[in-house]
Amino acid sequence: MHVIDYEGIMKELRDLGATRVLIQSPEGLRKEAEALADFLEARGLEVILQGNVNYGACDPADHEAKLLGCDALVHLGHSKIPMALEVPTIFVPAFAEVDVVEALRKNMRDIRKLGERIGLVTTVQHVNSIERAISFLEGEGLRVIVGRGDSRVAWPGQVLGCNFSAARVDADGMLFVGSGYFHPVGLAITVKKPVLAVNPYSGDSFWVSEEAERLVRRRWAQIALAMDARRFGVITSSKKGQLRLAEARRVAELLRKNGREAKLIVMNTVSYPELEGFDFDAYVVVACPRIAIDDAENWRKPVLTPPEVELMLGLRDEYGFDEIQGVRRELQNR
Amino acid sequence: MHVIDYEGIMKELRDLGATRVLIQSPEGLRKEAEALADFLEARGLEVILQGNVNYGACDPADHEAKLLGCDALVHLGHSKIPMALEVPTIFVPAFAEVDVVEALRKNMRDIRKLGERIGLVTTVQHVNSIERAISFLEGEGLRVIVGRGDSRVAWPGQVLGCNFSAARVDADGMLFVGSGYFHPVGLAITVKKPVLAVNPYSGDSFWVSEEAERLVRRRWAQIALAMDARRFGVITSSKKGQLRLAEARRVAELLRKNGREAKLIVMNTVSYPELEGFDFDAYVVVACPRIAIDDAENWRKPVLTPPEVELMLGLRDEYGFDEIQGVRRELQNR
Repeated sequence: MHVIDYEGIMKELRDLGATRVLIQSPEGLRKEAEALADFLEARGLEVILQGNVNYGACDPADHEAKLLGCDALVHLGHSKIPMALEVPTIFVPAFAEVDVVEALRKNMRDIRKLGERIGLVTTVQHVNSIERAISFLEGEGLRVIVGRGDSRVAWPGQVLGCNFSAARVDADGMLFVGSGYFHPVGLAITVKKPVLAVNPYSGDSFWVSEEAERLVRRRWAQIALAMDARRFGVITSSKKGQLRLAEARRVAELLRKNGREAKLIVMNTVSYPELEGFDFDAYVVVACPRIAIDDAENWRKPVLTPPEVELMLGLRDEYGFDEIQGVRRELQNR
Repeated sequence: MHVIDYEGIMKELRDLGATRVLIQSPEGLRKEAEALADFLEARGLEVILQGNVNYGACDPADHEAKLLGCDALVHLGHSKIPMALEVPTIFVPAFAEVDVVEALRKNMRDIRKLGERIGLVTTVQHVNSIERAISFLEGEGLRVIVGRGDSRVAWPGQVLGCNFSAARVDADGMLFVGSGYFHPVGLAITVKKPVLAVNPYSGDSFWVSEEAERLVRRRWAQIALAMDARRFGVITSSKKGQLRLAEARRVAELLRKNGREAKLIVMNTVSYPELEGFDFDAYVVVACPRIAIDDAENWRKPVLTPPEVELMLGLRDEYGFDEIQGVRRELQNR
């Protein structure tokens, strides 16, 4: 189901002179991680598998690799985010073996409704198909615009759940190719344009605006719940790509200036049950935006994102999605 | 309920010149962690609370403290285990406010059954009461022996769930003062002597041998379940006091030499659900012994400790508890 270039990884490891390797994988690539371990062990490397589930490139196991004396980390399933890492790390995207063109063809009637200039974005699983998608759509007479995005994304047209920089293009509407709700909904809230999501696995599509409105209503309900809270826990994460300490401090300061108490909290994986013993009335998660938004029902206290705190305090009017921005491409290598 | 010396901590932090501090706490000391944060913030320090639940001194958040730019880590509730830490760390035991003598008095009839020479051990919560306990027991005409233990324990007579070195004394029977089952059961399996456990909170006591036999029977059932397993995942932890990589390698080697497949796995917090995607038939946990023993019912695959692997392979006969040993006191500072 996923294409992983084992030989290519072995070659890179050989170039690094690695003899002991840590392999990190998301839940959906456990079997591939084991197969890669077999492959590398058969070629004389010592391999350790990272057993904790990995949620993204924002959570590299480089420090564990170093603790274990590994020469290199192989991180499966995600493209690179620039971070200061403690061992050489090979980010290996796992591309889905699915034909995106077939799904696009099936949905051409809706795609045409996006307008003349169509912005095309996708997730890492399908970035390898983006050229084929462009050719097909242009063959259908459409004008396709693919943004380069900032330094947090590796591929043209790639979006993350926390970064839609590649969608900041001069288009009439956005075409999202991928599965799930979180990415297209975040995209619709961020770009404020019509978004059509096409699922390349099922061939189905949906217009995202309704889902986006539903989410924003749910988030306003959270904000209302937090309105009377006095003591806030402002949580950042020690995962390297989610460690937003300056932003957490800014949010805590904002709360204090507006008559609330705020304490800084750090967690690695942020989950509510571990916080039960604390005496906070509400939480702000300044880490991955998915935590507050996707997981709120598992929290027994209101949980907000930073822009939602600003809404609660009356410091902004319009609902804003919590993006984690990289640096602009043209500034990246200066 | 717990005595924590806030002034003393402030003084130590001042001596360290600390301006930003991370506070780490177990589930039962969350309120105390918050109160300490209030206390330190009122005195001009910046404080960050560690939100993940801490299970022991074996899991210090020193690396996170460093990542966050903290000058010091305050680790609440546990006594120090010698480890190479990345920031100055103050281990603050939290002593229970409970009178152990009252519970001992109530159980004197059973205590006398332990024999003439009684070994006395307890957990960190009650080590501050050990002198009073000795005086009382000696006043009752008993001979009390308190072992010093190895470098992994900080106080005379202290035991951990993974270390009973302070119980290796020339006594007829062992008196355990504390709550819970895990420590006294591990103790009974390790010392192979009668153990009486006295709970200072409830005043109740029980003879541990029956519980210990029940546990050993349960563990033999796990061993039997693992007997036919072909592929083993051998898990160590990246928590600094549980990182037993050499032992994990030894176990993996042992399995391979005896016709099984074995792969090394590292996790931070070891829990079964994150491993579900892997294709192993059984696991060995070479981290905290509590994981395999206390948590086995939550695993859908057999899970063993290292000595249990030796039993399974027929390399030893007698059930052995998985201890993590420190170095001998007299060797520690050479």
